[in-house]
Amino acid sequence: MGRLLVVGTGLIGGSFALAMRAAERFDTIVGYDADTAALARAQSRGLIDEAATDLRVAAATATAVIVAVPTDRIAEIVLAIASAGAPVFDTGSVKGSVIAALRAAGGVPTNYVPTHPMAGSEFAGPDAARADLFRARPVIITPLHDTDPAALASVATWWRAAGSMVTQTTPAVHDEMVALTSHLPHLLAYAFMDWAATPHSAAVDLFAGPGVRDFTRIAGADAAMWRTIVAANRPALLREFDGLMDKLGEVGVLLREERLDELQTLLERGRLARQRLVGADDVGG
Amino acid sequence: MGRLLVVGTGLIGGSFALAMRAAERFDTIVGYDADTAALARAQSRGLIDEAATDLRVAAATATAVIVAVPTDRIAEIVLAIASAGAPVFDTGSVKGSVIAALRAAGGVPTNYVPTHPMAGSEFAGPDAARADLFRARPVIITPLHDTDPAALASVATWWRAAGSMVTQTTPAVHDEMVALTSHLPHLLAYAFMDWAATPHSAAVDLFAGPGVRDFTRIAGADAAMWRTIVAANRPALLREFDGLMDKLGEVGVLLREERLDELQTLLERGRLARQRLVGADDVGG
Repeated sequence: MGRLLVVGTGLIGGSFALAMRAAERFDTIVGYDADTAALARAQSRGLIDEAATDLRVAAATATAVIVAVPTDRIAEIVLAIASAGAPVFDTGSVKGSVIAALRAAGGVPTNYVPTHPMAGSEFAGPDAARADLFRARPVIITPLHDTDPAALASVATWWRAAGSMVTQTTPAVHDEMVALTSHLPHLLAYAFMDWAATPHSAAVDLFAGPGVRDFTRIAGADAAMWRTIVAANRPALLREFDGLMDKLGEVGVLLREERLDELQTLLERGRLARQRLVGADDVGG
Repeated sequence: MGRLLVVGTGLIGGSFALAMRAAERFDTIVGYDADTAALARAQSRGLIDEAATDLRVAAATATAVIVAVPTDRIAEIVLAIASAGAPVFDTGSVKGSVIAALRAAGGVPTNYVPTHPMAGSEFAGPDAARADLFRARPVIITPLHDTDPAALASVATWWRAAGSMVTQTTPAVHDEMVALTSHLPHLLAYAFMDWAATPHSAAVDLFAGPGVRDFTRIAGADAAMWRTIVAANRPALLREFDGLMDKLGEVGVLLREERLDELQTLLERGRLARQRLVGADDVGG
């Protein structure tokens, strides 16, 4: 049992707190947030039992620490608290940049376990927290060769207790795959909307059906957050971006030269890949 | 009242038949389909009252004819039946290519009214037909300067009776706007999936969350149908494609040169455009 310290009591940290409460994994859940209004709200909503005002003091008595803050702030917090000894794990959507920042600051603590829960919501903050946010969702753990096995095992157990499907891979594989499956589609959706907003002959909304609405849904996400994410995963994202640009270049040539058989072959390969991704029950229209 | 002839008794033609039946607009609904199995199925489902075996004979007694066949087959059917005199309207998703084909074959009949209902489904065929498919959906009508005003008015009335919101514009504006809002997103989604299917370090489905699933939903659509559509709208689609490629080139430069403030400005412009498109209630995550 013991004390869980939740650093960052927003959607992700708050949902983890609720999940651990539901699973009765800790005696006490302590929250810390630089945003004192969010921290107070988390306490009044019952996400946390206690609100800490000093991060290091709270970490000193913690059995586990989840660091659920923006990607570019994870390393400083891990460094501030890891020496207290409890397993520390983050929820950042990029892993390599956090590990690099820790290395640059003197080394990656062996009790730090890099994790990424593949879950979220269109809403943010403690009011959006839900006990089932991670249920049946993948959590990717990317340990290093000297990550403490006991800390790794504990963190995996906690995520499983939240209902997650835990998978392990390397930081590099993780960052490549999220660049492809998340960061690149976000860039494309934002760029598409920015192009669609340039002057055309009529209003876009009159012609926009459900297809383009689904296609651009992710362009509704917060731009400052996505600036941070793409900056943190720039090398992997650039490789995926360049690969897609080559593919689009090929599409452009086939369209321009009216090579329709080859174009149809490409479309059909894409359709089959989509079908493998989601199963045949969710076809497009 | 009179007789409605439905040429092509699949999803679109069948749904229009059901909508007209519900609105009690015609005494009799006659169906014609080159696919005799689809025609028989349309009759057994009650979409049509009579199945015609000769297109011209059926057209001779029709009060109205809807041509709901693939884009590249519309012109030949319009030419075969327009001389019978009743208003003829199609449902193709590209307008310029149909009009050009009619012009090349001797002229656009004045009783032909080009229309495009912005509605569809992930399912096809007479079994997917629904009386409410067009309800609250836009229908774009693109008359020519010599389109018969009485035919135009009748066709608009029928679409409104199906529950549609009727808008009028030119074929060129229509084709530009559907290139932007429909054909370009389809090309992007197919190309993205084809790139995602090239070898990466891990399986894509493990990392694919709801964002990328929505983003690629339209890549589940039939590749042969989309080959026909992009071929029919090639000039307008190439202009939109090139515009987007310029935009993506800009994104690539900003990412590569780590010009993150400018990148964030672009993302935020995209986010605001998306918000204008759908309203603030449907933000991304």
